Amino acid sequence: MKIDIWSDVICPFCLLGKRRLDAALAGWEHAGDVEVVWHSFELDPNAPRDLGGTLVEKIANKYGVSVEQSRASQQDIARQFTEVGAIFDWERAKPGNTFDAHRVFHLAVERGLGNEVMSRFMTAYFAEGAAIGEVKTVQRLAVEAGLDADEVRSVLDGDAYGDAVRSDELAARQMGVSGVPFFVFDHRLAVSGAQPVEVFVAALNQAWDTQVSVPTPFTSAGSTGEDDAKVCGPDGCAIDDPRR
Amino acid sequence: MKIDIWSDVICPFCLLGKRRLDAALAGWEHAGDVEVVWHSFELDPNAPRDLGGTLVEKIANKYGVSVEQSRASQQDIARQFTEVGAIFDWERAKPGNTFDAHRVFHLAVERGLGNEVMSRFMTAYFAEGAAIGEVKTVQRLAVEAGLDADEVRSVLDGDAYGDAVRSDELAARQMGVSGVPFFVFDHRLAVSGAQPVEVFVAALNQAWDTQVSVPTPFTSAGSTGEDDAKVCGPDGCAIDDPRR
Repeated sequence: MKIDIWSDVICPFCLLGKRRLDAALAGWEHAGDVEVVWHSFELDPNAPRDLGGTLVEKIANKYGVSVEQSRASQQDIARQFTEVGAIFDWERAKPGNTFDAHRVFHLAVERGLGNEVMSRFMTAYFAEGAAIGEVKTVQRLAVEAGLDADEVRSVLDGDAYGDAVRSDELAARQMGVSGVPFFVFDHRLAVSGAQPVEVFVAALNQAWDTQVSVPTPFTSAGSTGEDDAKVCGPDGCAIDDPRR
Repeated sequence: MKIDIWSDVICPFCLLGKRRLDAALAGWEHAGDVEVVWHSFELDPNAPRDLGGTLVEKIANKYGVSVEQSRASQQDIARQFTEVGAIFDWERAKPGNTFDAHRVFHLAVERGLGNEVMSRFMTAYFAEGAAIGEVKTVQRLAVEAGLDADEVRSVLDGDAYGDAVRSDELAARQMGVSGVPFFVFDHRLAVSGAQPVEVFVAALNQAWDTQVSVPTPFTSAGSTGEDDAKVCGPDGCAIDDPRR
């Protein structure tokens, strides 16, 4: 079974949701048959490389609330991070444009290191105060996660994998996705947001139980019917029968 | 777009159907976005390695018709082969058990040579009188198609990839497939039998036009609703808003 996840590097609920999915998978009997695939989704494609100021200030400005209220909201998210074994050092967080990070992530997917690179990016942003919008940060983290330094530099110097990022985002728009994380189980069942572990377990079970999908028979004016379908079966090949 | 094909090596309508699909793809604008994947389906899993006798005799016996009538049916199929640029030398054909051929085909898939090996097997059976049920024939053809001789021998000496063959056949049964070829477009649309080229074109178009499938939102008692879904979007992270 395939699970597609749309997320952004700097989206706290994306990390929380992914960790809760992981927790659901950890205790699930068919976990060995699951393939998890990340997809790119930029919360703000127009963001500058460095938003400047602190996260608390930016949230206070965006919502028109006090710095104290903004701080409380970040503390609440940090508490939820702790519950899934992660760190959200919101006082040091340096949000910024994530397009380059997503481009390098797609290089990583081709090198079989998609999970490693995405995890490294997220940990660095949330726990280590890494300026994820800066080219040199993306370069350093990608290499730490196992990518070849020259190859990463070549991607960052050009525009490689930009199409892959846009393609992921187009697919999300076509599904009507406006916020992340967004999880799709086997192309059929969607879970939006950092839902509780038990919701992911229930979704996994439902997706698994409805896994066998029978395709719709194609019918058209030119299609031969059942009676003279040219097929071979256990008893021979249909129109092969000379008695007809 | 993915096209899954269930077929057997010795099934004449499988070769005809695949060639007609290829003809449909050759003139189709989105052909470059199509991935074709073969799947195993044995017409007769209990067949001996060598059925003995001629194909014409076997068909005459199976259907209780004269050798002349049987010959006419083979000539008709051979004529259809000619129309798709293939050869059916039915006088030399040596049908037999295809389990080993399918096992080696699955090795080929892992080595990126699935199409090459399946095509080689079919051409050898239909046009060259190759005894496809014999281990030494399968060994020779697989190596001719590009597989490593030692690796093929190791598969044929053991039972590797038997599970992969059975898994393909189980998937076919679960879809209610009793005869081949069976084509599934993007997991959703099915075409059964060696249909005319124009039917494949129409099926390709229909599958392409309905390609964007929106997954069903998962709902359960424990799922949080739209109002408090923990997502981040262009305007920030939902419950991040301290005014709520």
